[in-house]
Amino acid sequence: MDFTSASSINWGPAPDEWFTGKAWFGSMADPGDTEEIVVLGVGFEPGARTHWHSHPGGQVLHCLSGYGLVANEDGDRHALTPGDTAQIPPGEVHWHGAAPDSPMFHLSITAGGPTAWTDRPVTEDEYA
Amino acid sequence: MDFTSASSINWGPAPDEWFTGKAWFGSMADPGDTEEIVVLGVGFEPGARTHWHSHPGGQVLHCLSGYGLVANEDGDRHALTPGDTAQIPPGEVHWHGAAPDSPMFHLSITAGGPTAWTDRPVTEDEYA
Repeated sequence: MDFTSASSINWGPAPDEWFTGKAWFGSMADPGDTEEIVVLGVGFEPGARTHWHSHPGGQVLHCLSGYGLVANEDGDRHALTPGDTAQIPPGEVHWHGAAPDSPMFHLSITAGGPTAWTDRPVTEDEYA
Repeated sequence: MDFTSASSINWGPAPDEWFTGKAWFGSMADPGDTEEIVVLGVGFEPGARTHWHSHPGGQVLHCLSGYGLVANEDGDRHALTPGDTAQIPPGEVHWHGAAPDSPMFHLSITAGGPTAWTDRPVTEDEYA
């Protein structure tokens, strides 16, 4: 098995081209070039959010701290508070991030290969 | 998307036939009869642990509270404290649970179909 202690996680900035505002990535489980489960910690500063995107094998978000949001193109929109879990089906275009006045930390759980990013940031209207 | 708030999780006892001691299951993400990602919260009372088992698509454990253990048949053995993550490859027989004197709560993350349970509990010698 592979083991990643909390103190050995290698944190770095989330890529600018896929995020509005500042967020931090920390890899917790990475099976390399397979379609197995990938777990990433993501810490969003207040107001920060992903661009619109989808995942070929779907995504589960589990909120660990703060207050955030998750929404899809069909108008589903949920607040994310600690202990809440959102399950986004394969291919469903969505975004997630922190509330305007709170940081938010969640686990990002995916399987089935890399994220499909759109070139669309979440506008202020979409976010509000 | 599906959304499960912390307050709407339906907790119940873990099945006796697969556990030594008492543990609690709460489903957070369940894609039904697919091979997509399943997330289950598991709370172990002190001394409680799974039987030896494996998962066809592997398993990721992420510890949220308490102090626990995870071990495989090759002699890999790790303490689990909050923020720690273990990634167990597909088919690797292993067990996990609480330390003798502490409860432990982790997320169980699987994909690829149901758990393959052995009929072997973790003996006191294996646990110690």
